[in-house]
Amino acid sequence: MPSSRTSVIALLTDFGTRDWYVATLKGVILSQVPRAQLIDITHEIPPQDVIAGAFVLASVVDWFPPETIFVAVVDPGVGSERPMLAARADDRYFIGPDNGLLSWSLERATRATIVRLTNRRYWLKNVSRTFHGRDIMAPVAAHLARGVRLSRLGTPVERITKLVLPAIQRHERSVEGSILHIDAFGSLITNLPETLLRGKLSSGQVRVRYKDRQARMVSSYMEGHVNELIAVVGSLRLIELAIREGSAAWVCNARRGDPVELRW
Amino acid sequence: MPSSRTSVIALLTDFGTRDWYVATLKGVILSQVPRAQLIDITHEIPPQDVIAGAFVLASVVDWFPPETIFVAVVDPGVGSERPMLAARADDRYFIGPDNGLLSWSLERATRATIVRLTNRRYWLKNVSRTFHGRDIMAPVAAHLARGVRLSRLGTPVERITKLVLPAIQRHERSVEGSILHIDAFGSLITNLPETLLRGKLSSGQVRVRYKDRQARMVSSYMEGHVNELIAVVGSLRLIELAIREGSAAWVCNARRGDPVELRW
Amino acid sequence: MPSSRTSVIALLTDFGTRDWYVATLKGVILSQVPRAQLIDITHEIPPQDVIAGAFVLASVVDWFPPETIFVAVVDPGVGSERPMLAARADDRYFIGPDNGLLSWSLERATRATIVRLTNRRYWLKNVSRTFHGRDIMAPVAAHLARGVRLSRLGTPVERITKLVLPAIQRHERSVEGSILHIDAFGSLITNLPETLLRGKLSSGQVRVRYKDRQARMVSSYMEGHVNELIAVVGSLRLIELAIREGSAAWVCNARRGDPVELRW
Repeated sequence: MPSSRTSVIALLTDFGTRDWYVATLKGVILSQVPRAQLIDITHEIPPQDVIAGAFVLASVVDWFPPETIFVAVVDPGVGSERPMLAARADDRYFIGPDNGLLSWSLERATRATIVRLTNRRYWLKNVSRTFHGRDIMAPVAAHLARGVRLSRLGTPVERITKLVLPAIQRHERSVEGSILHIDAFGSLITNLPETLLRGKLSSGQVRVRYKDRQARMVSSYMEGHVNELIAVVGSLRLIELAIREGSAAWVCNARRGDPVELRW
Repeated sequence: MPSSRTSVIALLTDFGTRDWYVATLKGVILSQVPRAQLIDITHEIPPQDVIAGAFVLASVVDWFPPETIFVAVVDPGVGSERPMLAARADDRYFIGPDNGLLSWSLERATRATIVRLTNRRYWLKNVSRTFHGRDIMAPVAAHLARGVRLSRLGTPVERITKLVLPAIQRHERSVEGSILHIDAFGSLITNLPETLLRGKLSSGQVRVRYKDRQARMVSSYMEGHVNELIAVVGSLRLIELAIREGSAAWVCNARRGDPVELRW
Repeated sequence: MPSSRTSVIALLTDFGTRDWYVATLKGVILSQVPRAQLIDITHEIPPQDVIAGAFVLASVVDWFPPETIFVAVVDPGVGSERPMLAARADDRYFIGPDNGLLSWSLERATRATIVRLTNRRYWLKNVSRTFHGRDIMAPVAAHLARGVRLSRLGTPVERITKLVLPAIQRHERSVEGSILHIDAFGSLITNLPETLLRGKLSSGQVRVRYKDRQARMVSSYMEGHVNELIAVVGSLRLIELAIREGSAAWVCNARRGDPVELRW
């Protein structure tokens, strides 16, 4: 239980940073936990893009300390009957709507306890139909930070909404995958894990095909030539396509979901 | 007085986040109050848009804990003779230029004490003519956080510059108002309060007219159909126009100040 | 040594705020120093623009408290053999790649001790070739915050990569300089220091020539007329070109490096 310790509360939303929405969440949390260590993961998830939110969230989890409380609000269903969840997965906490946003983060854990938020005692008194982040998720995060047990927040659930991670298809001399995420540098992060490369790198024969291009597999961005599409193992241990000092997304007119093929 | 407690200092500016301006404010504050809980409300108020700044500031105040110190810098008059203010309103503090930026936040309070900043002892030694946020407002915030009394900072003032909130006009079967703010989702926040709806919702006959459109009054975004302009009571308890999974601002080419009519 | 004190760790990157990169740095730091006071200088340095990063960093240093640890990651050479540095300059710490990013901040100091990061004991166990900010710089910052001595982190270096600050040329009745930085307001910050104006202001004859325009020297933005290009001493004590309530960058189609002339 995080009690005398500093509680790290990490926020991910699609609210943008122009308006008062993010600050309102923080004000609600600070009203109960004034010393919370509040960290912005990002508030620039494209509006209502649950997949992007799920991907970014799952990408940071491992780097945060135990007992971190993650609050994720990408919630096109606000005001509907979609449940809200809180979970303890390995040694971290998660709060968010049951729309898949938390699913990749929870699936990665070796053990997870999940509850559906039902105990209104831990919510704000007046709950709007348009801003559950403020009225439910933020106060629940504050209560967790103050040591309230997960089991007090609601009723256990076994099944939650899951996002289907696009599958990879293995052939004899190739694997087909797809683009999972396009980052702000214009790098194209695929769902092809580094482990596919085992035993193949020495040959120097590995290529990644994307659209009508062939990307050479290199071990750091610096090895790319000007304008050359390269493939590199990125910081998430997934294969990425990139152009050194350029934007692969722009040059290739890339979209999430586009097929990518690893050949050797 | 916030002394042994963690001081929450919340910042709102039009500085953007590309440059060193916001960090400079924070550095000045931390030089005196290293444990301050610094919260960014937003730094993306459109340049010199005092009305937008005043609206966003007034929208967050109630959600922050007592003793929070709000520092607001949207200051087209920097370097001129416009006064700078510090105030205690109910149990929170405010610092900003006397150009209307604080007025909606202070008017909402049941009691407010306002001073004009005149005591240079609490400013940086060298005051520029281009960056009073750094040279005057940030150090004054730090001194307040350290327990300096408001009355030490300057001389009491009774009247400050006020922004005129656009009035609503009541007719027998309608109320005319206008658009107060356009948020980053493209929702159009009007000056029509939820209270206008009392006793009318059961009829289901309430409509909001905007330009050549009629918006149906619903109770959450999820009730809207694709491309349908809907009206909903937003998180500020004001009526908003929105399009589910779209941008009402974009579709309607909306501008702040546009007239809106509630009919029943 | 910052030990029982709150450590201020200030971050400057070109990562943007849409992705997980910044949060990952913070998670790594918080895993070791949960109470760190983490401050974002900016994450919107244009991708791989070392000059802009160096300028913004040098602009904030003086305003932060002693013992602040600055972590700067604008690192087009990640994965190559370019060294990484840590330094103590006057009473603050700096961590970043040896590509010029730190040079303006270190040159300004009256004394500086610089080491090349070589001691892998203070890095993450697995170091990628694509994200040294996470794997090396963030953990080194955390160790400094916990009191590890600079000398433990690596081997002393005497010479680092330096950026050449564009020189100014002095003539009998003029000085030629150039535009150093364009800020988010569209103001054009030159490399002409305020000191050039000594003894000249009383004449009221000082003009700044830029492209085919003549800017009048004024003492605050408010003195400019509508659409008038003015010159003012900015908050860095450098002469800036600006348009009151407008963008000089836009109106003049300005670029960093453009020549500017001060005449009297």
